Amino acid sequence: MEKILTENNSPPIDGWVHVVQLSPPCLGDNMADTDRLMTRLQEKLNTQSIHIHLSLISTLPEILRKSNFYVACVVFGCLNEYHLIDVQPANDFIPVYGLAIDLGTTRVVLRLLDMVQHKIVTETTVENPQSSIAPDVLARIHYTDQTDGLKHLQGLIIDGITKEIQKICQSCSISPNRITCMSIAGNTCMTHLFLGLPPHTIIREPYIPVVNKQLIVSANDLKIPIHPNARIFVFPNIGSYFGGDLIAGILSLDMIHNENIAIMVDVGTNAEVVLGNKDWMLACAGAAGPALEGGVSKIGMTAGPGAIERISLAPESEEFIFQTIGNKKPIGICGSGIIDLAAVLFQSGKLDIRGKLVPEKCNDRLNNHDGLMHYTVVSKDQSATGENLTISQADIDSLIRSKAAMYTILTTITQSVGMALADLSTFYVAGTFGAYIDPSAAITIGMIPDLPLDRYRSVGNTSLEGASRILLSRNDIESIPIIHKHITYMELNVNQEFMNRFSAAKFLPHTDRGLFPSVMC
Amino acid sequence: MEKILTENNSPPIDGWVHVVQLSPPCLGDNMADTDRLMTRLQEKLNTQSIHIHLSLISTLPEILRKSNFYVACVVFGCLNEYHLIDVQPANDFIPVYGLAIDLGTTRVVLRLLDMVQHKIVTETTVENPQSSIAPDVLARIHYTDQTDGLKHLQGLIIDGITKEIQKICQSCSISPNRITCMSIAGNTCMTHLFLGLPPHTIIREPYIPVVNKQLIVSANDLKIPIHPNARIFVFPNIGSYFGGDLIAGILSLDMIHNENIAIMVDVGTNAEVVLGNKDWMLACAGAAGPALEGGVSKIGMTAGPGAIERISLAPESEEFIFQTIGNKKPIGICGSGIIDLAAVLFQSGKLDIRGKLVPEKCNDRLNNHDGLMHYTVVSKDQSATGENLTISQADIDSLIRSKAAMYTILTTITQSVGMALADLSTFYVAGTFGAYIDPSAAITIGMIPDLPLDRYRSVGNTSLEGASRILLSRNDIESIPIIHKHITYMELNVNQEFMNRFSAAKFLPHTDRGLFPSVMC
Repeated sequence: MEKILTENNSPPIDGWVHVVQLSPPCLGDNMADTDRLMTRLQEKLNTQSIHIHLSLISTLPEILRKSNFYVACVVFGCLNEYHLIDVQPANDFIPVYGLAIDLGTTRVVLRLLDMVQHKIVTETTVENPQSSIAPDVLARIHYTDQTDGLKHLQGLIIDGITKEIQKICQSCSISPNRITCMSIAGNTCMTHLFLGLPPHTIIREPYIPVVNKQLIVSANDLKIPIHPNARIFVFPNIGSYFGGDLIAGILSLDMIHNENIAIMVDVGTNAEVVLGNKDWMLACAGAAGPALEGGVSKIGMTAGPGAIERISLAPESEEFIFQTIGNKKPIGICGSGIIDLAAVLFQSGKLDIRGKLVPEKCNDRLNNHDGLMHYTVVSKDQSATGENLTISQADIDSLIRSKAAMYTILTTITQSVGMALADLSTFYVAGTFGAYIDPSAAITIGMIPDLPLDRYRSVGNTSLEGASRILLSRNDIESIPIIHKHITYMELNVNQEFMNRFSAAKFLPHTDRGLFPSVMC
Repeated sequence: MEKILTENNSPPIDGWVHVVQLSPPCLGDNMADTDRLMTRLQEKLNTQSIHIHLSLISTLPEILRKSNFYVACVVFGCLNEYHLIDVQPANDFIPVYGLAIDLGTTRVVLRLLDMVQHKIVTETTVENPQSSIAPDVLARIHYTDQTDGLKHLQGLIIDGITKEIQKICQSCSISPNRITCMSIAGNTCMTHLFLGLPPHTIIREPYIPVVNKQLIVSANDLKIPIHPNARIFVFPNIGSYFGGDLIAGILSLDMIHNENIAIMVDVGTNAEVVLGNKDWMLACAGAAGPALEGGVSKIGMTAGPGAIERISLAPESEEFIFQTIGNKKPIGICGSGIIDLAAVLFQSGKLDIRGKLVPEKCNDRLNNHDGLMHYTVVSKDQSATGENLTISQADIDSLIRSKAAMYTILTTITQSVGMALADLSTFYVAGTFGAYIDPSAAITIGMIPDLPLDRYRSVGNTSLEGASRILLSRNDIESIPIIHKHITYMELNVNQEFMNRFSAAKFLPHTDRGLFPSVMC
């Protein structure tokens, strides 16, 4: 590891580590140590607002003199709140790290970055430990109504992160106190729980978060044992249902620098949508239902080994070809698989345009259980469970509602600015879901618009990506409040017009077939 | 105590307590709680830089709703570092207080102020507990070279202040956590010791403090148990020998708003001098020696009961008239008494213009002890000690060096800007010393210039006064960095010219009698 930093051959100028050679004091230049350093840093970073903690001030006389006033300074912050976190002799520099966290309801992804070399050191994914209390946002919020419920939930995630930090640091042979900054991008509720902020107003009309604006909090205050002066950048929320993970995503896609109008969609139980370019940006969120997260009864599952993630029709036959995660025998079907399934059922005539199973086409694969029609997707001799994997008409209805909601939200947001879906230059599909979805299948069932496939871009974990970028770049962190201001949040009023659109979108692919010219059945 | 604050009938607009009525959130106005409050406060205070601690954010949803969004906010800070410290329902307001501290080497004065009613609640003076380690600045700095010496000295002053806070709060029946802000004005060394900053570079060439600029530190970080979010404003220093107490003094005298050119002098072992007006300001400091702090051998004492503080000549006789502190029998003589003594000895011909005792005038009051001439100021039958109180020729020589140093510093600073001392519109004499000195006596011995007496103003504890003002007024606190920038520090080079002036000033009142026309002998 490079231990010598020089002022000219040094970390990126846009980053957080800055090397400075100060002129040593003399009788004719008797500026105080701290003022000498801070004045220089303020000039270099072009900001008056750099704070320095007393404990760091007290170490400066020794560090400055033993380094001959040649030091590397680790800074972090945004707007009018920069912090000088660490000062080291530049000739004997111990590397410093940033930790980016994508704080998901289900999973937490941690990525360690080298702040000087600007590269990823390692990355790890763990289950959000709050899942042991409740799997979903709503149940966790209700849990905070219990005595010390909030404290407990906050403790779980803080402890969970702390443990992962210790593991990561051990595996990389670095001391946790070399982590000088962190970033956290999560949905509004997860962010509240992480900060220990009471979340109950989020889900009750008029749906008010405790805080939306970005925060820079002390790691010490949250009892996360990294560098004692470390600061944590908490991404801002737009509202109760549009969180910091999306803001991080918008950053990572550079949407506010783009001339062309793009849309970004992140689909889970809620669908979150951002539309716009450098001049304007509109965001909205709406309930998509559990179907797209593998939440259909029995057969549905979250993506994992044995989950069917891809289904296609064998050429010139009616046979389905399955692809499972890890090439295991199938035990269920995840979100992307459900969409593929609906598409192939529809294409092979087994689903009609109302989304109803067609008995004459399904033959013996269709059975009545407890008064509900079930279609056998995988027969018991091929499944890992030894039982038929079936999907019910109710499951399909649920999927259709989800896809109709998705399409309606997309239509509503684009029409609200007088655009047609066809005008979109790029259609980003974010999140885990986006990484696996087959756009042509989603188009087939009318979930997403019938655009040329090359306009669809699966962009993966944009939340983690955005959280990482601000740990390496001042320009990027300074973009966050700009993005935050740039976005207009549109309340999705479920009015008659919305309901009409929703009803029309409940057909496969749509009542207006002209909207889906590429879909042939 | 007023418990209801209203937005119109409320604390002074220039102060730190601000009442705001927020519009409650609704579906059409779903700004988050913290953003709603902070946006309003930022507008009201016209600054973007208000920080709020996570612990306060977490209490906002409840406070805002139970108060119907009608709250009193306690803010404190300066420049780009304001802190929201406390938020309370305005209809049920519990008073908040500020604590101003004049942190002297010898004594610490604490003043409690009501932040809403803008009045002094109480004031107390205690010995600086560091005196138990060493009486003077230099010895304390040397003590920090010992292991944990700095920690020990810091602990003493922090504990001392903490105990006084507890006493004050108990006597006023208030809770210490109602103290939301503090200010500390002390000399450079005392400020360093209070903050736990290593002071040893202050006294070694090139005389560099660890920090000169103002600091806003958390009371929590210093383990001072007042309001958990309380902030402490630490007055900036100009340099090693010109501290925050002087800056506070300059504030309290409004010197930077004055058209006329004034001078402020604070005399102790060092003489600190500021000269200037609204357009420019020059500061310097020089050693004045111990004589003016009662530091002459044997007879000298600091001001206290039994100290002779005033001496005059009885009309038409050669008798001295003494005035002692507390009207006790004399046990010694303090700084102001020494000056009076020298003046009356000179006026009665017992001292010649070289400052030497004149045997033929002193008669039997003059005695030789151990080869040194001593003048009996108070005979043993009149003293409290039962012994003669005498002053030696060496003591007088020491006083003469002090007064010569003082006059030389005053001459040097005024001449450096091409002024004559006679041009000064006002001559402020600050500090305890200033409160007791008789300007006409000081003029008689040529310590201060021969100005009309009405230009002299004894201004008392300007350090405490300045420290108090910033706890009540944003304008005043914002003046501090302006004053700090406004001052040019002049290094008193002890060159040949300075030494020539010093030699000339060692006569009584001066070799150039024309400078002291009012002094008649």
